[in-house]
Amino acid sequence: MKQITLLGATGSIGLQTIDVIKENRNRFSLFAVAFGRNVEKALPIIQEFQPKYIVVQDPDAKNKILTSISYHPAILVGTEGMKEIASHPDAEIVVNAVLGSVGLEATLEAIRAKKQIAFANKETLVTAGHIVMKEARQNGVELLPVDSEHSAIHQCLRGEKINEVKRIILTASGGSFRDRTREELKNVSLKEALNHPNWSMGAKITIDSATMMNKGLEVIEAHWLFDVPYEQIDVLMHKESVIHSMVEFRDRNVMAQLGTPDMRVPIQYALTYPERLEFSSEKGLNLMEIGKLHFAELSFERFPCLKMAYDAGKTGGSLPAVLNAANEEAVHLFLQNQITFLQIEELIQRAMDEHKVIQEPDLETIQAVDRETREQVKSYVN
Amino acid sequence: MKQITLLGATGSIGLQTIDVIKENRNRFSLFAVAFGRNVEKALPIIQEFQPKYIVVQDPDAKNKILTSISYHPAILVGTEGMKEIASHPDAEIVVNAVLGSVGLEATLEAIRAKKQIAFANKETLVTAGHIVMKEARQNGVELLPVDSEHSAIHQCLRGEKINEVKRIILTASGGSFRDRTREELKNVSLKEALNHPNWSMGAKITIDSATMMNKGLEVIEAHWLFDVPYEQIDVLMHKESVIHSMVEFRDRNVMAQLGTPDMRVPIQYALTYPERLEFSSEKGLNLMEIGKLHFAELSFERFPCLKMAYDAGKTGGSLPAVLNAANEEAVHLFLQNQITFLQIEELIQRAMDEHKVIQEPDLETIQAVDRETREQVKSYVN
Repeated sequence: MKQITLLGATGSIGLQTIDVIKENRNRFSLFAVAFGRNVEKALPIIQEFQPKYIVVQDPDAKNKILTSISYHPAILVGTEGMKEIASHPDAEIVVNAVLGSVGLEATLEAIRAKKQIAFANKETLVTAGHIVMKEARQNGVELLPVDSEHSAIHQCLRGEKINEVKRIILTASGGSFRDRTREELKNVSLKEALNHPNWSMGAKITIDSATMMNKGLEVIEAHWLFDVPYEQIDVLMHKESVIHSMVEFRDRNVMAQLGTPDMRVPIQYALTYPERLEFSSEKGLNLMEIGKLHFAELSFERFPCLKMAYDAGKTGGSLPAVLNAANEEAVHLFLQNQITFLQIEELIQRAMDEHKVIQEPDLETIQAVDRETREQVKSYVN
Repeated sequence: MKQITLLGATGSIGLQTIDVIKENRNRFSLFAVAFGRNVEKALPIIQEFQPKYIVVQDPDAKNKILTSISYHPAILVGTEGMKEIASHPDAEIVVNAVLGSVGLEATLEAIRAKKQIAFANKETLVTAGHIVMKEARQNGVELLPVDSEHSAIHQCLRGEKINEVKRIILTASGGSFRDRTREELKNVSLKEALNHPNWSMGAKITIDSATMMNKGLEVIEAHWLFDVPYEQIDVLMHKESVIHSMVEFRDRNVMAQLGTPDMRVPIQYALTYPERLEFSSEKGLNLMEIGKLHFAELSFERFPCLKMAYDAGKTGGSLPAVLNAANEEAVHLFLQNQITFLQIEELIQRAMDEHKVIQEPDLETIQAVDRETREQVKSYVN
């Protein structure tokens, strides 16, 4: 029985991780959970699995939980709590499914404690890839990606050598506004933006898909996870999201991973790697029914956020942290209906332009840059 | 420098193997060649590479060669010659690219001599898979497939466990007559049949693609190469031939190999496995240019040869040898303009119906069945 620490239990990936654990109760047990403010969503999970540790972000949540459950877990608060359950000796697998850069320190603790890490917290790699991957190498820990694209690449690289890779090709569905021109984007609503064609995901990542920043963050994540230079990472528009990503080798063979849009598949893959367990879902991929797969160019002009991400990644240093923080803040403002859709990219670009890059930033510097950038982006609209 | 024995040097795969050797002269040397009757095509190869051994099928060819070259190779004749160069101590890699069941004995010799075997002689596995694979297992030899479909599957299985495979999915272009109805097939000409939409191949295999027997033989070959039951091998129509084949795992992940229609890629893969060498061709796969990939059902009613192959494979014993010999003879008759296109399948079905299956046939039995079937098929039209 593998003991799992789940960070970010009430988000989209967290809830689907719970599904995978439910389907494999003979293999997995929920040892500890961390979540943000959503006590309502967390309570049924806590009641069902009775994890030994619970980490909340909000001290008030502690009492709400204690009055609602019938057993006596340890309840911790905030980043320190997350670090504790991520590195607890009894935890064997750490699923990092928190949203945003709040997952960074817990990731480092899990690496140092040499846990098997299922990794869905791309912001951590985007902002601090150089620190995280150095720790991972030093501790001989592999980060097992949960993102469907990176899971695809991970699978394409099974039994392969990274120096024989010519190109990583991330596919992009195009998001909610794939078929709209720049002109047509001026007046799109929040509701339209939240309507993703293929995947059911959280609000923030759905907006990131529409701006293509999500793909940009994935490019940076792929760079760190697979140690491949940006020049060898391409993005291809593929509206059906059936091919989740590809790897071209130097001998011209291209490997691809295909599947249905079901995040539980890559989650299970990361939890059970190197084994592939039976996945007990109703239906697998049926290409006969799908009939056609489409591919097209994904242009930097149409999707400037993608270019910003490549720029930030190639420049490196503290700039990816600015990209990420400015994006999180801008998307937050958009979700609050305080800015228009196209202002998201404007605010990010402005924050990047105004930033003086710091090379090899340490954790404190990254966190300071993160805070400052958020304040700055807020100041742009107030 | 790896010493290569090339069986079937003047066929389509043989000539493309020569291309691959030319591109990698620092790694490969042509130790020995065998070919059939095409001295004209063989001579430039012999002159350029000066192999130490030459095997001809026709004793007259020997003199033709001796008068045309300026060095002194050993020249052998027929099956015995092929066996000798396939198992010669100095040969490190044996490429078996002969057409038809004539490659069987040389394959067994190469296996017993524990050579690295690049394998493009599907008839050998179709007729004697039970014998060949038993020898391969006993000798710890892996047959490295050269067929693009089987090379794709081999690549999808890198770093994987065969017991985690749910399904092998062979793709089929549909051949020259993909879009024609059964009715429209009645009057197709030889010239039309030889016009394959995607691949440039030999005449026999091009006809086999049009009847879908090629895919049927590939199903049987896949069964033996990868030790997967017929119930777990599917065929999918995919007219662009960009996805060369796929493997679905039990965890719902589907791996695929994609590429341009260039046989030199899987040939090089088989020669260099487990390494992937730079392939110095002008252009790799460009999905952006291709734009769309199509998938459709491939029906047994439209392509009865595919059903015959599944039937023969599942029944086993001597029936696949009948399937293969009847097909070779029928295609030969069609290429000679002696029968119509639809008669190909009629003759094969009749030969299969009239055959009394022998279980676990040995080599002599298979060869006898092969001869008898050919005579029988000839007798149907005379």
